[in-house]
Amino acid sequence: MPGFKLVGREARQKGTVVKVGNTEFGSNKVAIIAGPCAIESEEQLLETALAVKEAGAAVLRGSAYKPRSSPYSFQGLEEEGLKIMAKVKKKTGLLVETEVIDARDVALVSKYVDALRIGARNMQNFSLLREVGKSQKPVILKNGISSTLDEFLCSAEYILAGGNKNVILCNRGIRTTEPELRFPVLSGSTALLKQKTHLPVIVDPSHSTGNSSLIVAASRAAIAEGADGLIIEVHPSPEKALSDKRQQLTPGQFKSLMPELERVAKAVGRGL
Amino acid sequence: MPGFKLVGREARQKGTVVKVGNTEFGSNKVAIIAGPCAIESEEQLLETALAVKEAGAAVLRGSAYKPRSSPYSFQGLEEEGLKIMAKVKKKTGLLVETEVIDARDVALVSKYVDALRIGARNMQNFSLLREVGKSQKPVILKNGISSTLDEFLCSAEYILAGGNKNVILCNRGIRTTEPELRFPVLSGSTALLKQKTHLPVIVDPSHSTGNSSLIVAASRAAIAEGADGLIIEVHPSPEKALSDKRQQLTPGQFKSLMPELERVAKAVGRGL
Amino acid sequence: MPGFKLVGREARQKGTVVKVGNTEFGSNKVAIIAGPCAIESEEQLLETALAVKEAGAAVLRGSAYKPRSSPYSFQGLEEEGLKIMAKVKKKTGLLVETEVIDARDVALVSKYVDALRIGARNMQNFSLLREVGKSQKPVILKNGISSTLDEFLCSAEYILAGGNKNVILCNRGIRTTEPELRFPVLSGSTALLKQKTHLPVIVDPSHSTGNSSLIVAASRAAIAEGADGLIIEVHPSPEKALSDKRQQLTPGQFKSLMPELERVAKAVGRGL
Amino acid sequence: MPGFKLVGREARQKGTVVKVGNTEFGSNKVAIIAGPCAIESEEQLLETALAVKEAGAAVLRGSAYKPRSSPYSFQGLEEEGLKIMAKVKKKTGLLVETEVIDARDVALVSKYVDALRIGARNMQNFSLLREVGKSQKPVILKNGISSTLDEFLCSAEYILAGGNKNVILCNRGIRTTEPELRFPVLSGSTALLKQKTHLPVIVDPSHSTGNSSLIVAASRAAIAEGADGLIIEVHPSPEKALSDKRQQLTPGQFKSLMPELERVAKAVGRGL
Repeated sequence: MPGFKLVGREARQKGTVVKVGNTEFGSNKVAIIAGPCAIESEEQLLETALAVKEAGAAVLRGSAYKPRSSPYSFQGLEEEGLKIMAKVKKKTGLLVETEVIDARDVALVSKYVDALRIGARNMQNFSLLREVGKSQKPVILKNGISSTLDEFLCSAEYILAGGNKNVILCNRGIRTTEPELRFPVLSGSTALLKQKTHLPVIVDPSHSTGNSSLIVAASRAAIAEGADGLIIEVHPSPEKALSDKRQQLTPGQFKSLMPELERVAKAVGRGL
Repeated sequence: MPGFKLVGREARQKGTVVKVGNTEFGSNKVAIIAGPCAIESEEQLLETALAVKEAGAAVLRGSAYKPRSSPYSFQGLEEEGLKIMAKVKKKTGLLVETEVIDARDVALVSKYVDALRIGARNMQNFSLLREVGKSQKPVILKNGISSTLDEFLCSAEYILAGGNKNVILCNRGIRTTEPELRFPVLSGSTALLKQKTHLPVIVDPSHSTGNSSLIVAASRAAIAEGADGLIIEVHPSPEKALSDKRQQLTPGQFKSLMPELERVAKAVGRGL
Repeated sequence: MPGFKLVGREARQKGTVVKVGNTEFGSNKVAIIAGPCAIESEEQLLETALAVKEAGAAVLRGSAYKPRSSPYSFQGLEEEGLKIMAKVKKKTGLLVETEVIDARDVALVSKYVDALRIGARNMQNFSLLREVGKSQKPVILKNGISSTLDEFLCSAEYILAGGNKNVILCNRGIRTTEPELRFPVLSGSTALLKQKTHLPVIVDPSHSTGNSSLIVAASRAAIAEGADGLIIEVHPSPEKALSDKRQQLTPGQFKSLMPELERVAKAVGRGL
Repeated sequence: MPGFKLVGREARQKGTVVKVGNTEFGSNKVAIIAGPCAIESEEQLLETALAVKEAGAAVLRGSAYKPRSSPYSFQGLEEEGLKIMAKVKKKTGLLVETEVIDARDVALVSKYVDALRIGARNMQNFSLLREVGKSQKPVILKNGISSTLDEFLCSAEYILAGGNKNVILCNRGIRTTEPELRFPVLSGSTALLKQKTHLPVIVDPSHSTGNSSLIVAASRAAIAEGADGLIIEVHPSPEKALSDKRQQLTPGQFKSLMPELERVAKAVGRGL
């Protein structure tokens, strides 16, 4: 009685490939999403976009709506941010994704981006899950910070049950008792998710480690374990970022990371 | 830099008393909320209401909207449930509270009840927090299942910053590594919350223990530690409940619990 | 298949009363153990002993062997500490207990004290458990900082299976994801232990909260929940203590705590 | 003030290479330890040894002393097991390691094996740490199941401070709130350990996942992240094993794992 049906491997032995534009998640190629935590300005986003495109990223990330624990933290540029993202998409030809945090915003946000992201805090915001379930827009669903794998899959089930089969699971780790890692991904959890579900599974090394010096290692590990993609934070000047300063790579760091990831992908029989 | 201002003790040394109807939360009297997990029918709710009223409860609980991990679990009677609650309120004279799970429902739900409840899964549903912040209806805010105390207070801050000062914090425990307790309340956490904030703090022994045989002990402990109230699940036939079978008390068990709680309340200088 | 037999309620419906000298653990009276974290000098221990005796404590605590995470932290006075404890026992007439951390020391330590304590780090030091199992000296067994209740009971089973039935369980809490409480006791865990085992269960509010300002609240809660005793750290000058500065009460604080505990004990039908 | 000095990177920038016989831990080659959970018979150990040797393992593991949560579980063959290990070492030429669980056994166990292992339950058995600190025998130190990285390093410090510099850290994961993984390794923790200490770090994919179907993935991830070695459980007939049935590989599975590991090792610039 795990509480899910459509997302289980029993329902579909073959892995599902979810397409964001022409980029496949769940195929033999490992897909890389990269970009800043938050959209801060057109200059910031464009500079990042050009850099991650050149390094080989397939999709640009960037949040216009920032759910923040404190009401006094930077909350994102909202629709202005979406407009910036649309401009940068046009200028660079990159696919783009962004977070949606309110069921009332799904239609609006969908106009601007190629994929919707649902963050950890909203994994069990069932109104939001139902709303994106009515759409056909690809959804990147992150697990909650202390959800079990089965609870995570149940949340994906809400979206599939609503009619949207284009769900990409994002393993972003959970809160543990180790104080020096933010919300670490559990080794084995990506592989176990892939056993339990046919949906593609990507990993977020940035939010899970919370430490830019660990992102190379965590990214290599994720691909070695079988992740179908990564979502990595990159910012032109991480130390000046309005959020997540400690965990964003510079464009230069990202550029040198990519060939490392390609070597590991090849070692496990995949490409980048 | 804890991320909150209005809810801190620094902002207000004196404890805030939040009134739900004529019942005070945060005064010298410990307030008891009781009722079923979910509203299942008028008969079920009325029978429970009469029983908990006679035993001394001040407020009737009952959910019309049930956020459930699985889309295939019972989701509540929705507006029909609210109408049942309104009828039972009229027949019994009890104050009533219910959960609101969607920012779009706040106005509707507010018409039927004396207090709104925000559940653990929505502690960081900031759209919902902002919406109830615009209201003056008392809000019972539960902590998320792995939130820290500071994150909990930050979420309350969203409501106060929005203009609604009538917030009652509900300590419902967190997920731990102990498999035999559901989401246990941490001993000391209620007392520490009371040091950090001026808002009233109640405890939920039902959802935290997940075990009806532990509710007497956990309720006594909560009052002894300094809780300003309790919210306890009571169902006419727990074994037939559509949700939370294992943790609901029978009316008879609730009736015998109340004098026990009164003795502990008096031992710590309070009343019931 | 819980892995234990002798300690289960199935093996013995009636609660076991363990006697330390003439003090009963598990009877209708709640027994209080108090004293410093570590034995630092005869003056320090004697001053504390006289104060806790006057306030009504039954047993004096104090560690001569200190298991410390770092090899560079104060490790205790070792046998010199035991000799100090013996002197203070003679001068005050108090019963005394201390920690034993090595199977090779059991015989030596037993000569000096009325009860042996096994700390959290040694809950699964099976050589040590077997050694105290061969003795008839009462053993206060603390749970490991992330043990489950069943693992805790299995460790007690080692001692009973060895032939020593005089085991007092000490619920000292576990490591959780809440950063502001040290190793909090889970509300409901003491009551659940009492359902599962016939052995007496005491609570350690000092090591669990790690915060002297929470000890009154946590102690009241423990008794209200059904604890058979408490073990509380008291130091003449907590700020000068060689270990656990933040969590030791002053003699004055302990003195004012005791009548509070007595009121709660009476409210739940017990005495102090 | 992390509580350690000798084990920190500050004390020694260059990574330490610990030699077990002629096998290096911490050099450019990833070292593989493999063998059964427990030594059950000469036939069982020899069969396993021949298989893992042929597949390329450098060191044979096998426990003669089994610390078990329950006193009624199989406790190991003790000295008889050590003698079996010595015979198998002679017949196969493999290096061998085994667990030591009691300070009084260090000298005896050291006569039979090339490296001592200290298990998770004994990470803070300081008597045992001090005893192996007096030896020059290599020590494989596992972290406790809810230790922090700093507490782990402090325990290693006890051994180095005692005079034994031959310490290999074994990252075996911690207890988390995910019920489907036993004690998972946190992604990023191996890389972070390597930043903090100069000691070699190996990973235990068997005890961390607790699931033989996840060992390939977890092993690949560990090497990709930067582990200096792995310790993997292999048993001729896992379903008949006297302990850890679910997490031991068959010799055939181990044989097919090794080339996979070699590919990942090469992808990160190392060999096997």
